[in-house]
Amino acid sequence: MADLPAALEAAALRDSRGVDLTVWPPRYDPAYRPAPTAEHWLPEIECADPAERDALIFAKLVRQVRYAWERSPFYRRKWQEAGVSPDTLKSLDDLARFPVVQKADLRQAQAAAPPFGDYLCIEPAEVARIHGTSGTTGRPTVFGIGAEDWTRIGEAHARILWGAGIRPGDRILICSFFSLYLGSWGALAGGERLGATVFPFGAGAQGQTLQAVQWARDLRPTAFYGTPSYALHFAETARREGVDPRSFGLRILSSSGEPGAGPPTPPPLIEDTFGGRCVDMGSMAEMSPWMTNGECRHRTGMHLWQDLVYTQVCDPETFRPVPYGAEGTPVYTHLERTSQPMIRLVSGDRARWVDESCPCGRTYPRLPQGLYGRFDDMIIVRGENIYPSAIEDTLRAIDGFGGEFRIIVSRREAMDELLVRAEYTAAHQTRVDTLRATMRERLRARLGVHPVVDLVPEGTLPRTEFKAHRVIDDRDLYRRGLAT
Amino acid sequence: MADLPAALEAAALRDSRGVDLTVWPPRYDPAYRPAPTAEHWLPEIECADPAERDALIFAKLVRQVRYAWERSPFYRRKWQEAGVSPDTLKSLDDLARFPVVQKADLRQAQAAAPPFGDYLCIEPAEVARIHGTSGTTGRPTVFGIGAEDWTRIGEAHARILWGAGIRPGDRILICSFFSLYLGSWGALAGGERLGATVFPFGAGAQGQTLQAVQWARDLRPTAFYGTPSYALHFAETARREGVDPRSFGLRILSSSGEPGAGPPTPPPLIEDTFGGRCVDMGSMAEMSPWMTNGECRHRTGMHLWQDLVYTQVCDPETFRPVPYGAEGTPVYTHLERTSQPMIRLVSGDRARWVDESCPCGRTYPRLPQGLYGRFDDMIIVRGENIYPSAIEDTLRAIDGFGGEFRIIVSRREAMDELLVRAEYTAAHQTRVDTLRATMRERLRARLGVHPVVDLVPEGTLPRTEFKAHRVIDDRDLYRRGLAT
Repeated sequence: MADLPAALEAAALRDSRGVDLTVWPPRYDPAYRPAPTAEHWLPEIECADPAERDALIFAKLVRQVRYAWERSPFYRRKWQEAGVSPDTLKSLDDLARFPVVQKADLRQAQAAAPPFGDYLCIEPAEVARIHGTSGTTGRPTVFGIGAEDWTRIGEAHARILWGAGIRPGDRILICSFFSLYLGSWGALAGGERLGATVFPFGAGAQGQTLQAVQWARDLRPTAFYGTPSYALHFAETARREGVDPRSFGLRILSSSGEPGAGPPTPPPLIEDTFGGRCVDMGSMAEMSPWMTNGECRHRTGMHLWQDLVYTQVCDPETFRPVPYGAEGTPVYTHLERTSQPMIRLVSGDRARWVDESCPCGRTYPRLPQGLYGRFDDMIIVRGENIYPSAIEDTLRAIDGFGGEFRIIVSRREAMDELLVRAEYTAAHQTRVDTLRATMRERLRARLGVHPVVDLVPEGTLPRTEFKAHRVIDDRDLYRRGLAT
Repeated sequence: MADLPAALEAAALRDSRGVDLTVWPPRYDPAYRPAPTAEHWLPEIECADPAERDALIFAKLVRQVRYAWERSPFYRRKWQEAGVSPDTLKSLDDLARFPVVQKADLRQAQAAAPPFGDYLCIEPAEVARIHGTSGTTGRPTVFGIGAEDWTRIGEAHARILWGAGIRPGDRILICSFFSLYLGSWGALAGGERLGATVFPFGAGAQGQTLQAVQWARDLRPTAFYGTPSYALHFAETARREGVDPRSFGLRILSSSGEPGAGPPTPPPLIEDTFGGRCVDMGSMAEMSPWMTNGECRHRTGMHLWQDLVYTQVCDPETFRPVPYGAEGTPVYTHLERTSQPMIRLVSGDRARWVDESCPCGRTYPRLPQGLYGRFDDMIIVRGENIYPSAIEDTLRAIDGFGGEFRIIVSRREAMDELLVRAEYTAAHQTRVDTLRATMRERLRARLGVHPVVDLVPEGTLPRTEFKAHRVIDDRDLYRRGLAT
């Protein structure tokens, strides 16, 4: 790229770190790895003067935006309507003038141009991997990722895992579901690229946690990847087997997939349970590398690894960046993505960002409290995003549904439990068992988690116009975390 | 390597196919791919004169055996006891004088030198991936695979999938469990290396099949990987949703993990159900590349891809190779494995091998009926190997078990069901529910599949000394397959 900041010395980076920033997307040497004692994977960038790094980010952004403009009818349409184009992007500040992308826009684009939507910038046959969301808000979103993007995803995750303290000698037990959920696959790709020993054990099948405990006891992994609630469920399963979770000797637990994994809780609970360090990670599946919000070993809140995915915490209405210190919602922009680039994707999560320094030396902005809530009514159950509207749509499509329902989320043995209490019509009185089974199966297929369905006669539940009144979240994990 | 057969022209292979056979292990160019219209990935080897290929195999074998001798106390001990060594290996025929390895030997070696056993030939920190068996025969076996081996596993799978007719334009839906089970991971690695679009959807969680059906309907994969019984379960789930399995447009179904996937059934049933071609694959998890027994698109029985894994069908008592045309059990030998090489691993499966030609032009020996049974009492339930002895051990360790049991395997909606009928002691009469739950959980953890547990009072079941009398296999899949 033409206008790289001189201070970053592209030639030196190529020689010492195996990264060629003079081309876009950057080229990475798969054989590069820092010395095990090194704190950083790419210190020249991670610890750069922010203004100089911003120049690199801008150079990458210009290429990314022009690429999307040339290849994607989706972006061209959206940007033309908003009166912006690659030519109006003269500085990083100009990015805020570009319209945001909402997840609903992506679903709509995929419905109109299935399966990948007209923001796929490569040929469908060039898609190397397909993943997706569970479709909790209706139509699932399909991720089509090219082979080179997949390699870069592994590269990015390796760098961020390195920042969390993982080293080639580590043995990483990955206890998250290997299916649609991208976090598992990103952790696997990153661990492989970093040169650690990866053990993709997975999660989600019956009896699997007990098996995982037995393997962990025998194999003594040094690192664990999974959601915070799964980590606690894993610990409780171990205790029931007479195994002290501290005896595994886990040095690092890397948690993602749930707002609330961030400081101040429940990491204290997880750290107390396992005796290891719990770092907070994650952004959105669409944005993979999933971990581009990722803590370092000092645990001062998730760093925003801005040269990989450029993140601005924005006002949830105007989508203009808020000042450091203020709360908003992260808006994410890919900087080296050729298959389905996301440019200004709105997360909807709540976060506060700061630009204060961290003892690790990285000069990235940070989210000192992580992602601690939502601006909409989305709830997260066992790592899956659940919208009450998806439950409502599913129930209303079932013959026999009596018109009103409640959603009760609770926690049993550190695992979330989703209870859907629904009414049945008088006509279905004699077929309640069949109806319950149907609802259960349809909700499971739609939500990605298995709900308990409780049926009550039509007219039992008070009517409400307010979606929020239908949701009762009774989980006490964070409270327990605080009390420990 | 010094003594490569001249006919294979190593220099030409390096230039045209990107494979360097002059070094061991061979080096493969990750960018090589045949033209999409080509029938073979590596025709010079796949279609070679068998005697010439045997010279290549012998050259690889010599290096493999010497490597194991130098790095592995396990093999050195075993071979010294048997009076063999790399020096006694003067021809391929000499291999039969080397002692076989039984799975029990591996478990014993791992118990003595945990976790990988003293047949691990690299440093534990060099292990890139850990997988394993479910431990159905007691202690699970741990697979520690180095990064270079993993790359070669992908290379081998790509070549074999190419032989099955998969091409870069294909979209492969992988519907098998992503956890310990290595078949899923091998198919994924192979599909990626081949340049197809892979969709690692997985299997095993509740409700996942319905989700898979919905994704298949939207994404229209052209290829499917999973066990034969899962393929049929998938089809039945589709039909319940009003979706004709033929409407997916699957061109190729690749089945493995169950003896019985081979000709003559149930592929006719699967092919009739989906309207695609069903090819039979698989060997043993220890041997991955799992598919080195693999059919080509002509479906004449699994080819033995001898230059990747050298396979001899042997007498189940003497372990000397049986003549072509005769029945025996496959004994497998790695030829390019540096982490945990298997040299003469006994499978225990039943097979008949022939050396008749195949219309595809490959000159490998074949298993015209695939793997069609076992020489021991192992049963396969939902792709997991189950030994009645493992069920017995588990039950006997539970307080309240009344001393006798039966194992009933049946098939419900194309999915295997495992019923364990066990006695309880009189003292546990009031705690039958708790006992059943304990048995269920322990058996699930040990076997990898969730059994139905049926409890009966002590003394109800006739006593037997013969393990086989405790097993009732009531599956009718193959009979149904024949009737179709």
